[in-house]
Amino acid sequence: MALIVQKYGGTSVGSVERIEAVADKIIGYKQQGNDLVVVVSAMSGETNRLTELAKQIDPRARGRELDVLLTTGEQVTIALLSMALQKRGFPARSYTGGQVRILTDDAHNKARILSIDADNIRRDLELGRIVVVAGFQGVDADGNITTLGRGGSDTTGVALAAALKADECQIFTDVDGVYTTDPRVVAEARRLERITFEEMLEMASLGSKVLQIRAVEFAGKYNVPLRVLSSFEEGEGTLITSDDNEEDSVEQAVISGIAFNRDEAQLTINGVPDTPGVAYEILGPVSDANIEVDMIVQNIGADGSTDFTFTVHRNDYEAALEILQNTAEKLGAREVSGNNRIVKLSIVGVGMRSHAGIASRMFEILAREGINILMISTSEIKVSVVVDEKYLELGVRALHDGFDLADDSEE
Amino acid sequence: MALIVQKYGGTSVGSVERIEAVADKIIGYKQQGNDLVVVVSAMSGETNRLTELAKQIDPRARGRELDVLLTTGEQVTIALLSMALQKRGFPARSYTGGQVRILTDDAHNKARILSIDADNIRRDLELGRIVVVAGFQGVDADGNITTLGRGGSDTTGVALAAALKADECQIFTDVDGVYTTDPRVVAEARRLERITFEEMLEMASLGSKVLQIRAVEFAGKYNVPLRVLSSFEEGEGTLITSDDNEEDSVEQAVISGIAFNRDEAQLTINGVPDTPGVAYEILGPVSDANIEVDMIVQNIGADGSTDFTFTVHRNDYEAALEILQNTAEKLGAREVSGNNRIVKLSIVGVGMRSHAGIASRMFEILAREGINILMISTSEIKVSVVVDEKYLELGVRALHDGFDLADDSEE
Repeated sequence: MALIVQKYGGTSVGSVERIEAVADKIIGYKQQGNDLVVVVSAMSGETNRLTELAKQIDPRARGRELDVLLTTGEQVTIALLSMALQKRGFPARSYTGGQVRILTDDAHNKARILSIDADNIRRDLELGRIVVVAGFQGVDADGNITTLGRGGSDTTGVALAAALKADECQIFTDVDGVYTTDPRVVAEARRLERITFEEMLEMASLGSKVLQIRAVEFAGKYNVPLRVLSSFEEGEGTLITSDDNEEDSVEQAVISGIAFNRDEAQLTINGVPDTPGVAYEILGPVSDANIEVDMIVQNIGADGSTDFTFTVHRNDYEAALEILQNTAEKLGAREVSGNNRIVKLSIVGVGMRSHAGIASRMFEILAREGINILMISTSEIKVSVVVDEKYLELGVRALHDGFDLADDSEE
Repeated sequence: MALIVQKYGGTSVGSVERIEAVADKIIGYKQQGNDLVVVVSAMSGETNRLTELAKQIDPRARGRELDVLLTTGEQVTIALLSMALQKRGFPARSYTGGQVRILTDDAHNKARILSIDADNIRRDLELGRIVVVAGFQGVDADGNITTLGRGGSDTTGVALAAALKADECQIFTDVDGVYTTDPRVVAEARRLERITFEEMLEMASLGSKVLQIRAVEFAGKYNVPLRVLSSFEEGEGTLITSDDNEEDSVEQAVISGIAFNRDEAQLTINGVPDTPGVAYEILGPVSDANIEVDMIVQNIGADGSTDFTFTVHRNDYEAALEILQNTAEKLGAREVSGNNRIVKLSIVGVGMRSHAGIASRMFEILAREGINILMISTSEIKVSVVVDEKYLELGVRALHDGFDLADDSEE
């Protein structure tokens, strides 16, 4: 008998019919002898409806009252799901974030969880009840309603699992797990049975939008086993655990997946005097304009000057280019150039740490296909390259094939 | 400078435009130097939408989870109204029933208020804030969300006014006050400037559905001056106060209003043995069938037997008649008869207490119009008669005219 925290997102509870289906699914787990705490989001469309109402009143609505408004969305779902469970003869009890109580800081619209008082939930579980908790919401120390920001329901699930020392936190979504790469690009892409928190973070931030990054960080920090599953299909999903978990029992693949990002743009400033603080002088004005910078590389030029390249979201390309041209004038740089028709391809895997030559194998695979690499960046468990956007599918397929990801014999 | 509690119902806040209009109205009162606590209902249609969702899950949905669901309706309104006030530059703060905290018993769906902790509200008022409170809801001692039952927002307003010792509780509705009778029947019907709690109770229960009866009782008990006003028009409305309030300053009218009820049906059992307990033997089976009995009269017959007549809602007529026929057989009564084409007319007024002959003047007025009286019932401040339904308009107009209600010279 295990204690499982499950989280169902907005699409999974998007209609009365789907809520009924979720109730059936929950009861299946219950009947296997598990204790269940279920976190739910607002029914899909509801948060948008409420946001729209707020905008009609005040286009800049935010803060305390926006949280009071938006939290009604999940409150509706917890009530309906509890009714559906009760109708099936299973005692159930709903809790708002404030009722649990999920204590947060007072940063309305983007609060962080400080602590969870899980006593009520434990008592309900002892009484055999299924507990249904509103995701995305909490209260601050003064009893004001707060929200964790959009998508925060994943974080609620993980935080509850940590507080209750649950055996597993299961995130039900519209995909059936984490894949070696996007199946729409590579038909042979394979669902991973297991992946580490670190790999998941690299995969998520690189564009495989399965889980909220914050929830994965939280799960890693508190070592909560996290499982991504489909709301609509049967299956084991993908289990996300810490690096060390059962290391011996699984033959670790060198590379877990190929991530990619279409929305990149590259900017380069050439011939910058190579003096201390020059990186800040270049990137300071960009971040002052609230433009997020992704990859950054700096090469030393031949003449004691330096070349500096970075990538931004494609939507920010024009604005970043204008800022960089101003900076170039100030610094007396030789030239500014840019390219908004590029993409980023990354190989991710903790096995990289113990295997030499992974990066060069990646470059070899790409070279064999005649794909020119414009920029390279590496981390402990990831190698990213920037290439012309026309090579995206070709590059991903070549890497997926070259690293034998379609072959599941190692699992 | 006064402390005013205002309550706006579902129609008054039925759209974003109406919420904006309510915000303007509130600010008008605020700018006159008043402190304001505003109670709001769910936007019209919202409670029905939520109830419908619950019914799709479980047609018999009720109890704890239904309250969790329905209370989201008012929570949406308090957030939107607070945003509208803030947008206009007026600091405002919303509270759910649980946040206030409005402590109730644990009778879900029909809870009663036990106490109100108004400390937060007082602090907000001292800081110059307008306080916006969700009507209809509270929490029990264990923190479970409760509702006061439909229409309970009036009660929330009155209870808050009592707890805060407010100078007045203003109920904004879609009529501009309490009238001497229904203006759709008597064009000359006049808005009353003032009426007592007792009169209002008689008027309300007799069919002038302006205020929730429970709220009027509550206001009377705690002596909270209650004012009914229009959300949509300017005006002083009708002030409902205790009998003794400023008695000398107002020349009390003998009759305040003419109430009537179209939905009555009359049942008579003749020739019942006049023995102790016979009333219970007749009415017991009726109330066991959950049929509410309104007027009851009993006459002593000539032969030591008795005639017994009562009225029920017209919808319950057939069921009550069947029950009565069974009872008549059991009791050996002579005859059962009924009439579901009757109506009830009532004159209401505290002035009756000190003026003799009001009832006979009523009978005289009706007789002059050739209206036959089928049944009479009297109380301290009310005389009701049952007449054939075809006389309803004629009777109401004759009484309104005969008691000089159109003439407002006495106020």
